[in-house]
Amino acid sequence: MADVLILMGSDSDLDYMEASVEELKKAGVTFAIHVASAHRTPERVAQLVLRAEETGTGVVIAGAGGAAALAGVVAAHTILPVIGVPLPTLGLGGADALLATVQMPRGIPVATVGMGNSANAGLLAIQILALANERLKEYMTQYRIAMKEKVLAKDKKIQLRFNT
Amino acid sequence: MADVLILMGSDSDLDYMEASVEELKKAGVTFAIHVASAHRTPERVAQLVLRAEETGTGVVIAGAGGAAALAGVVAAHTILPVIGVPLPTLGLGGADALLATVQMPRGIPVATVGMGNSANAGLLAIQILALANERLKEYMTQYRIAMKEKVLAKDKKIQLRFNT
Amino acid sequence: MADVLILMGSDSDLDYMEASVEELKKAGVTFAIHVASAHRTPERVAQLVLRAEETGTGVVIAGAGGAAALAGVVAAHTILPVIGVPLPTLGLGGADALLATVQMPRGIPVATVGMGNSANAGLLAIQILALANERLKEYMTQYRIAMKEKVLAKDKKIQLRFNT
Amino acid sequence: MADVLILMGSDSDLDYMEASVEELKKAGVTFAIHVASAHRTPERVAQLVLRAEETGTGVVIAGAGGAAALAGVVAAHTILPVIGVPLPTLGLGGADALLATVQMPRGIPVATVGMGNSANAGLLAIQILALANERLKEYMTQYRIAMKEKVLAKDKKIQLRFNT
Amino acid sequence: MADVLILMGSDSDLDYMEASVEELKKAGVTFAIHVASAHRTPERVAQLVLRAEETGTGVVIAGAGGAAALAGVVAAHTILPVIGVPLPTLGLGGADALLATVQMPRGIPVATVGMGNSANAGLLAIQILALANERLKEYMTQYRIAMKEKVLAKDKKIQLRFNT
Amino acid sequence: MADVLILMGSDSDLDYMEASVEELKKAGVTFAIHVASAHRTPERVAQLVLRAEETGTGVVIAGAGGAAALAGVVAAHTILPVIGVPLPTLGLGGADALLATVQMPRGIPVATVGMGNSANAGLLAIQILALANERLKEYMTQYRIAMKEKVLAKDKKIQLRFNT
Amino acid sequence: MADVLILMGSDSDLDYMEASVEELKKAGVTFAIHVASAHRTPERVAQLVLRAEETGTGVVIAGAGGAAALAGVVAAHTILPVIGVPLPTLGLGGADALLATVQMPRGIPVATVGMGNSANAGLLAIQILALANERLKEYMTQYRIAMKEKVLAKDKKIQLRFNT
Amino acid sequence: MADVLILMGSDSDLDYMEASVEELKKAGVTFAIHVASAHRTPERVAQLVLRAEETGTGVVIAGAGGAAALAGVVAAHTILPVIGVPLPTLGLGGADALLATVQMPRGIPVATVGMGNSANAGLLAIQILALANERLKEYMTQYRIAMKEKVLAKDKKIQLRFNT
Repeated sequence: MADVLILMGSDSDLDYMEASVEELKKAGVTFAIHVASAHRTPERVAQLVLRAEETGTGVVIAGAGGAAALAGVVAAHTILPVIGVPLPTLGLGGADALLATVQMPRGIPVATVGMGNSANAGLLAIQILALANERLKEYMTQYRIAMKEKVLAKDKKIQLRFNT
Repeated sequence: MADVLILMGSDSDLDYMEASVEELKKAGVTFAIHVASAHRTPERVAQLVLRAEETGTGVVIAGAGGAAALAGVVAAHTILPVIGVPLPTLGLGGADALLATVQMPRGIPVATVGMGNSANAGLLAIQILALANERLKEYMTQYRIAMKEKVLAKDKKIQLRFNT
Repeated sequence: MADVLILMGSDSDLDYMEASVEELKKAGVTFAIHVASAHRTPERVAQLVLRAEETGTGVVIAGAGGAAALAGVVAAHTILPVIGVPLPTLGLGGADALLATVQMPRGIPVATVGMGNSANAGLLAIQILALANERLKEYMTQYRIAMKEKVLAKDKKIQLRFNT
Repeated sequence: MADVLILMGSDSDLDYMEASVEELKKAGVTFAIHVASAHRTPERVAQLVLRAEETGTGVVIAGAGGAAALAGVVAAHTILPVIGVPLPTLGLGGADALLATVQMPRGIPVATVGMGNSANAGLLAIQILALANERLKEYMTQYRIAMKEKVLAKDKKIQLRFNT
Repeated sequence: MADVLILMGSDSDLDYMEASVEELKKAGVTFAIHVASAHRTPERVAQLVLRAEETGTGVVIAGAGGAAALAGVVAAHTILPVIGVPLPTLGLGGADALLATVQMPRGIPVATVGMGNSANAGLLAIQILALANERLKEYMTQYRIAMKEKVLAKDKKIQLRFNT
Repeated sequence: MADVLILMGSDSDLDYMEASVEELKKAGVTFAIHVASAHRTPERVAQLVLRAEETGTGVVIAGAGGAAALAGVVAAHTILPVIGVPLPTLGLGGADALLATVQMPRGIPVATVGMGNSANAGLLAIQILALANERLKEYMTQYRIAMKEKVLAKDKKIQLRFNT
Repeated sequence: MADVLILMGSDSDLDYMEASVEELKKAGVTFAIHVASAHRTPERVAQLVLRAEETGTGVVIAGAGGAAALAGVVAAHTILPVIGVPLPTLGLGGADALLATVQMPRGIPVATVGMGNSANAGLLAIQILALANERLKEYMTQYRIAMKEKVLAKDKKIQLRFNT
Repeated sequence: MADVLILMGSDSDLDYMEASVEELKKAGVTFAIHVASAHRTPERVAQLVLRAEETGTGVVIAGAGGAAALAGVVAAHTILPVIGVPLPTLGLGGADALLATVQMPRGIPVATVGMGNSANAGLLAIQILALANERLKEYMTQYRIAMKEKVLAKDKKIQLRFNT
C-alpha cells in the first residue's frame, strides 16, 4: 500500500513530476508512481485508481499537459482527494492544461496547484495526510520553519551585498 | 442503429446542442442523443460509445463546457471520428472548453468545431457520412447552393437599402 | 470547534460562497464562516486561521476575486489544507482571481477549484475530512451514486423527447 | 488519385506538417501534398481542392499559422471533410491560428485539431476513411492497441525506477 | 463607380458596419455596400473586388467576426488598400476576429482598425483618398477641428459641474 | 491651484472616474477635473499638465479605455507622479486599456491601479500627498481603521446569519 | 521630401522595422526614418509628423512595443494615413503592443498590421501611394505575380520530394 | 533610515529588481533592500514595513512573480505609497503576476508598473519623493533631458545610416 498515488499522462512529464516524488520521499510518505493516460489508457487509469482506493491510498496526484483530462478522469473514479498539476506545453504556455484541470463541473472537484508545480502537489498531499498523522503535522511545521529560515538567510546575503 | 451519436455533459447544454439535431434531421441522418458526463458518469459514456460502435454508428458528436473532457474521453474509447463542440461558460467565455477540447495528445484526435457551434458539428458529421453516401453528397451540394442563395438574397436587400 | 473554516474577502462574495455552505450542511459537516480580507483586515485573517488550527478545524476554504490574495495569505499562516475559490469580476472574467489563487510559490500550496465553484470547494473539504471519517466516506459514496442517477434521469428525459 | 490532400500555407510549415505525412504513409493511405496559400495563391487553392474532389480524394488537411485562413478557404470550396491544423508562430503562441481555424461560421465546418498536431490530423483522416474501409478500421484498432502497449511499457520503466 | 467598397460577412454585421457608411456619407465619398462571405460565397467576394478594382474604386472595407477571413481574402484578390474591421462575437469577445484579421502573412497586408470600430474604417478610407483629393483633405482637417471642439465643449460641462 | 489633476479621455468615462473625485473630496484634497484626449486633443493634454506642474499640483490621475494612451502621454510631459486608471470596454474586457496603461517604457513610469478602480487612484494620490502632509497621514490612518471596522461589522452580520 | 516617414520608438526596434525599409527601397519609394518616442520625445514626434505633412509625405509608418502609443500619437497629429506595427516584447508576446496600437478611439484611426510585420507596413504604404501612381500600381501587380510564382516554385519542390 | 524600502519575494528576483537599485543609487536616494515573502515569511514582511514606516521611509517597492501577493500584502500594512513590480515567470509570461499585483480591492491601492520594469519602480519612487525634495525634482528634470538627448543621438545614427 502507498499513501499517495502519482499519475502522469506521459513519461516525458517526469521532469515536472519528480519534484512531488522528492517532497513525498523527504517526508517519509510512501507513494506509487505510474504513467497512465486518460486518453490512451483510460481503463488503466480507472484500474489504478480503484486499486489505490481499495488498498488504503489517501491522495492521488495527477499531472498532465494540453487537454489535461487526467486529473478530472481520476476524480471521476474516486472520492479520494485528487490533486491536479497542469503542465506547460509549447505555444499556449500551459493555459490549456490549467483551465482543463481546474474548471471541473459541480460534484467532481480537482484540487489544482500552480503550473508545473508538482512540489506543491506533494506538499498538499502531505498536509492532507497530516490531518490524521501527528508525525506529518510535526514534519510540516518543521518544514515551514526551515523554509522561513532559508528566506531569512537569503535576506542576510542580500543585505550584506546592498545595505550598508 | 443511429448514424450519429450525440452526447452532451449536461441537459443544460441542450440549448447549444439542439442545432446539431436540427441539421441532422433536415438531412435525414438518424441519430441518438444522450446526456452523459465524462466526470459524473464515465462508465455510461464508455458504454454508449462502445454500443454505438457495435451497432454501426459512424460519427460521435460531444458537446461540453468548462473542463470539457467529454469529447476526449469519447475519443479514448473509439476509433470512430469524434467531433467536439466547446460550450461557453460564464467568466472565461469558453476559452477553457475550447482548449480542453482541441488540445488532444498525439494519437487521439478530436475534430473540434467553433464555440457553441453545434450546427457545424452536425454538418461535419454529414460531410463525413457523405463520403460513402451519394444521397448525402447531393444533400450537402444543395445545402451549399441554398446557403449561397441566402447570402445573395441578403445582399440584395442591403443594396436596395444603401446603394442607389 | 468547526470542521471547516470558510473565509471570503467581502460579504458581496456570499452569492458565490453560499454553495459551499450548502454542501457542508447537507453532509453534516460543521463550519464557521467569516468575512475577512487579506488586504483590509490581514491580522484578522491570521487570527481566525490560527484559532481554527488550535481548535481542531481540518480544512480552510477561502474565496476571493480580483487580486485574490486571500487563499494564499491563509495558506501562509497554516499547514491545514487550504482550498481557494477564485471569484469572477467584471471585465477580466475572473482570470485575475484564478491566476492569483493558483500560482502559489513552492512550499505554500493552495488547492484551487474552478471559477466561482464553491460547491466543489465544500465537496473537496468533505473528501479530505472523509479520509479519517467513515460516515463522510459513506456520504460521498452515496453522493456520487445520487449524482449519477440524476444524470441518468436527465438522459431519460432527453431520450423521450428526441430518440424514438 | 490520392486519398488525402495535404495543403500548407508555406514550405516552412513542413516541419509541423510532416507528422501527418508519416501517419498516412504508415497506414498505407495515399496522399498528395502541396504548398498553396489562401492569401498568396487563392486560385491555386481552389483549383487543387476542386481537382481533389473530382478525382475521389476523401479528406483535405490544411495547416497554417497566423491569420490561418487556409483551412476555412478550403472548406469554402468543397463538401469534403476539411481538417485544420493551427500552427504556432512567434509572439502570440499560435492563439491566432487556433482561433482563425476553429471559429468558422455556421455552414462551413473545419475539423480543428491541436496546435501544430498534424499527426492527429493524419489520424483523424484515417479514422474518417476507415468508416468505409475495413483494412483501415483494423489498422486503427491495432494502432490503438500498440499505443496502449507503449504507454504500459513506459509505465513499467517508471515503476522499476521509483516503485519498490 | 464607387470610391469605397464595403463588404460584410453577414447582414447581422450591419449594426457594426453602419458607422462606416455614415462617415463616408458625411464626407461625400461614394460607396457600394455588399453582403458577401469569404466562406459561403467566395467567388462572389472575388467578383465584387475585381469589379471594384476595374471601375476605379480606391479602398475596400471588410468587416467580419469569428474566423474573420473576409478582409484577408479580399486582400488576396486586389492591390487596393484593404481595411479590416474585426467584429465582436459571444464568448471570446472578438479576440478571434481581431487576430484573424490582423495577423496576415508577409506580402498581403490588411489595415486593421479597432474592435467593431467601422467608423474608423470609414475615416481611414477618407484619409487615404484625401492623399489625392484636396476637398477630402480639407474635410478631414475640419473634421479634426470639430472633434477637438466637441471635446473642449464636454470639458467645459465637466468643469462647470466639478471645478469651482 | 489644485492638489490633484484628474483627466479622462471622454466624458463617458465619468461613471468610472467619479469615485476618485469622491475620495479626494472626502479627504479635503483639492482637485481639477478635465476631459482631454491623448488622441483628439493632445495639445490640450500637454497644456493642462504643464499648467498643473507650474501651479503646484502634486499628482495627476488619468483614466482611459481602449488604446488608453492618456496616462502615458501625461507622464511624457511631467515628472509629477502619474496614476493611470484603465477603463473596461466592450469585447476585450479592458485588457487593452490595462496593458496600454501599465507597459510603459523605461524612464516614464505610470502608477497603474486596477480595472476601472478610480477610487484607488484617488486614495493612492492621497497617500502620496500624505508623505508631506500630517493631516492627510492622519486621515489615511483613520480611513484604514474605518475600513477595518466596516469589514468586521459585515463579518458580524454573516456570523449572526450562519454561525450558531 | 520623402514619400513615407518611418518612426520607431527605440533603435532596438530596427531589427523589426528594417523589413519595411527594404520593401520601400525595392519599390523605389523614398522614405525618411527616425527614432522618436511617444513617451520620451513627444515634441519631436509631433515636429517630425508636421514637417512630413508639410513637405508632402503621403504615409507614416510607426513601430513600437509595450504600451506602444507611438502610432496613435502620430495619428493624433496628422490626417495622413498612419500604419502601426506592434512589436513583440518579452513576457506578454506583444499582445500589449497589438492592443495599444489597434484599439484607437473613434475619430483617429491607425491602420494596424501584424505582430512585428513591418514588411506589410511597407507594402501597405506602397498600395496606398499606388492609388495615385501608375508606376507603383504596376510594381505591386508584378510583386503579387512574383510572389505567386515563388509559392508555386516551393510547391514544385515539395511535390518532387513527397508526391510520386 | 532609508528613503525607499525594496522587497522581493525571492533572491532569484534580484535579476529583475537590480535596475531599481541602480536608479535609486544614481539619484542619491537611500534604500534598504530585503528578501521577504508574502507567503513564506508574512510576519517578516509586516515587520519590515512597519519599521520602515516608523523610521521615515517614504515609498515601498515590492517585486514578485506568480501569485505575486507581495505588493498587496505590503499595502495592507502601511499607508505609504506601495509600488508593485510584476515579474515574468515561465509558461504564463507574467500575466499572473501582473493581474495579482494590479487588481487590488477598493481601499488598498498598489501603484503597478510594467512587467519586470523595476527601473520604472525606482523612478516612480524618486518622482514621489521629489514632491517634497527640490534636489530630486531637479534630478528628474535633468534625467528627462538626458533621456531625450539619448533618443536624439540614436536618431542621428539611424539617419546617418539610412537617410541621405
